[in-house]
Amino acid sequence: MKRALTPGTFDPITNGHLDVITRAAQIMDEVIVAVARSAKKKPLFTHEQRIELAKQATSHLSNVRVVGFDKLLVDFARDVDAHVVIKGLRAITDFEYEFQMTALNYQLSHAIETLFIMSPPQFMYLSSSIVREIASLHGDISTLVPPAVAKALLEKYRS
Amino acid sequence: MKRALTPGTFDPITNGHLDVITRAAQIMDEVIVAVARSAKKKPLFTHEQRIELAKQATSHLSNVRVVGFDKLLVDFARDVDAHVVIKGLRAITDFEYEFQMTALNYQLSHAIETLFIMSPPQFMYLSSSIVREIASLHGDISTLVPPAVAKALLEKYRS
Amino acid sequence: MKRALTPGTFDPITNGHLDVITRAAQIMDEVIVAVARSAKKKPLFTHEQRIELAKQATSHLSNVRVVGFDKLLVDFARDVDAHVVIKGLRAITDFEYEFQMTALNYQLSHAIETLFIMSPPQFMYLSSSIVREIASLHGDISTLVPPAVAKALLEKYRS
Amino acid sequence: MKRALTPGTFDPITNGHLDVITRAAQIMDEVIVAVARSAKKKPLFTHEQRIELAKQATSHLSNVRVVGFDKLLVDFARDVDAHVVIKGLRAITDFEYEFQMTALNYQLSHAIETLFIMSPPQFMYLSSSIVREIASLHGDISTLVPPAVAKALLEKYRS
Amino acid sequence: MKRALTPGTFDPITNGHLDVITRAAQIMDEVIVAVARSAKKKPLFTHEQRIELAKQATSHLSNVRVVGFDKLLVDFARDVDAHVVIKGLRAITDFEYEFQMTALNYQLSHAIETLFIMSPPQFMYLSSSIVREIASLHGDISTLVPPAVAKALLEKYRS
Amino acid sequence: MKRALTPGTFDPITNGHLDVITRAAQIMDEVIVAVARSAKKKPLFTHEQRIELAKQATSHLSNVRVVGFDKLLVDFARDVDAHVVIKGLRAITDFEYEFQMTALNYQLSHAIETLFIMSPPQFMYLSSSIVREIASLHGDISTLVPPAVAKALLEKYRS
Repeated sequence: MKRALTPGTFDPITNGHLDVITRAAQIMDEVIVAVARSAKKKPLFTHEQRIELAKQATSHLSNVRVVGFDKLLVDFARDVDAHVVIKGLRAITDFEYEFQMTALNYQLSHAIETLFIMSPPQFMYLSSSIVREIASLHGDISTLVPPAVAKALLEKYRS
Repeated sequence: MKRALTPGTFDPITNGHLDVITRAAQIMDEVIVAVARSAKKKPLFTHEQRIELAKQATSHLSNVRVVGFDKLLVDFARDVDAHVVIKGLRAITDFEYEFQMTALNYQLSHAIETLFIMSPPQFMYLSSSIVREIASLHGDISTLVPPAVAKALLEKYRS
Repeated sequence: MKRALTPGTFDPITNGHLDVITRAAQIMDEVIVAVARSAKKKPLFTHEQRIELAKQATSHLSNVRVVGFDKLLVDFARDVDAHVVIKGLRAITDFEYEFQMTALNYQLSHAIETLFIMSPPQFMYLSSSIVREIASLHGDISTLVPPAVAKALLEKYRS
Repeated sequence: MKRALTPGTFDPITNGHLDVITRAAQIMDEVIVAVARSAKKKPLFTHEQRIELAKQATSHLSNVRVVGFDKLLVDFARDVDAHVVIKGLRAITDFEYEFQMTALNYQLSHAIETLFIMSPPQFMYLSSSIVREIASLHGDISTLVPPAVAKALLEKYRS
Repeated sequence: MKRALTPGTFDPITNGHLDVITRAAQIMDEVIVAVARSAKKKPLFTHEQRIELAKQATSHLSNVRVVGFDKLLVDFARDVDAHVVIKGLRAITDFEYEFQMTALNYQLSHAIETLFIMSPPQFMYLSSSIVREIASLHGDISTLVPPAVAKALLEKYRS
Repeated sequence: MKRALTPGTFDPITNGHLDVITRAAQIMDEVIVAVARSAKKKPLFTHEQRIELAKQATSHLSNVRVVGFDKLLVDFARDVDAHVVIKGLRAITDFEYEFQMTALNYQLSHAIETLFIMSPPQFMYLSSSIVREIASLHGDISTLVPPAVAKALLEKYRS
């Protein structure tokens, strides 16, 4: 069985993430959405909230599971017996960071292969940080994130 | 009347910003320098100080006004009835961020058009953060910022 | 009167070019589409054909004129009394080339200002060369270029 | 069955290409190495030679086939019933071109998904054109290409 | 005598830094490893620890000295009578930042020349921040940093 | 003795090249300007003309010699006993190509070290191809190239 990981902080999950996960789920037999704790990034949502929002957003995809983790990606991949990592690529800065991480993962473990899917134009400039910024300024994010995420952001920035 | 916004945090305004504003003022009928509160960036100067320094630096330009704002740029543009945003472009990293913001602004409002002016070589590598860093290490910034800004930075880092 | 040039080889004009010209025409009083002879690039269409296709594609825009030229852009701008050049920016490689040309134009003439408009996502990856390549392999280009251009390309590659 | 294409001009196939093909063959059930005729690029080797060299280089991989093609990639993919394209990514310039092509392929056909594998550091700067240049100056290419390709290049540049 | 500076925060020194220092020491008569205090970056290791780790890592290089500094690089270079700065270049983002700093250093002092050495592929994606991240997640960093640094990181993240 | 090569096609030598050569001559004991034959690039000037123009442009620099070559750079470096190559870096596209060539040179010979000097802002966008393009359109190139080159270009494009 071909099992792939789609790792990230998902703070919060966006329609761009969902597009990558959906494409991955069409190519692979099973996809595990791996939500990193990323405590050092001081996320807006708790680890539990981010996992829950990702679960709600992917509940219609039968071969997708959402799991939290707090270790090196290569170690987590070994734990869940996944040999493929699938990530979205949007822009040059993504690309450089992913190059760096992929080169290091090759060095840390030869058992993991990283594949990249390019975001379609309409998601190319969508990121969790942009979504948080727009929401904090009370802009309309309903076309950028799943409904449950829009609701959660609205509550965060209600005051 | 062609009214344009030149938005930014201006922490503080540099000779590079001034060059963009001056060029914009030659092309458009009126230019509004829009100083974002940007509280999350924890600016060195208060919103009021940044507005005041921008006013002093542009006081010789008769069709330029300085205004503070604290909302989405597309919403502020609507408030002041401006349909054009003009920004300076210096380097690749600028470019990627501006691409992202422009694509989002297109989605948030079709009434705003963003134009970019490329900085001339001598301003290409000038940024507020570089100016703050040099000033904090007691380097000479007199050729990089307007006189009032140089004086304000000197006071900040006097100790 | 604010008169702008939108220069290029236009071999052939695409829907991406048309988007830039349309946006420019909304901001400026008059737009001159300046079709460079570019003999060294050995264009697929003759200079006359490229001018004619650009005229047909822009005939519905009342403040747009199409003119051919075969000299330095700064010299042509002086001839037609235009002080602003407007170009579309799509990707990093565009960006570097345009930086180079703009820096040189600043040196060759202080009377010209170059402004850039970012292409919206759906046109970001559209170029004349991609259109020619798809047409040469008998792919469908009807959503990428104006109808008259699609017809002209079909004739070119009929054999 | 998961069938993938790894398309290219392969003028000639290098150890970098072979690395991408080998990785793809471990992830997918079947890999078709699709050698484009690319007549307009005026390749050094004929289409037949490039196909033959790719066959020799991949003969040890049981789930890899080499096939020539001379049409749009999306049309060829439909012909051979492949829904996934796998490509290697080395550098920024690759990245921009691949973005452009992927965006266009999304528009031309929704049935094709493009995945990217990042080259490991030692292959990151290896390209067919670099190999041809070194060979033409009688440099040692034995570590850069499969043995049969090294022999073919030696014969090309013997004079 | 040709004396060069290799400046940085070195939080901590990695095998990539060591590679640049070793190459510089082969080309120049003397190399001063200049460890910036960089208090604003809130380094993981104290200034004294970073200097000490750099000394241990370079103790086998007879023409290399390690010195701390807390001023503008051009001012420090003047203090120690060095006219050449040598830095490693890994990726595009490095490149932009270094361009900016070099352009400013040219403006601040004509007496300093900055030279860049490109990292070999195996060090291209190695940075202090990546090393800190892997160590914090209890990954193996023994091939990425000198032994004394590996030991110091192990102690930091023991809990 | 520290001997460095500054290689290139020099078709023709520009003020930007001259800036790199002058800086290199201040750092190294001897600089050899290595003019590649580059027959495949179909240069505008013959190999002999390019060597002669480089000689005239550097005649005032006592520790600079101009030599033509037509082999791999690493082989030529060995012939003239030079262990350092110095190149100018202007922009991202330069950077990627130089990365590729440097990585390959590391693999072809460990005896060669490549150093890069960043062009100052006023030369950052100056290239031989831009100079040829401006000259072919009868623009003023007198500030971009040495006088002898300006004269030679004028003669080329007189007709």
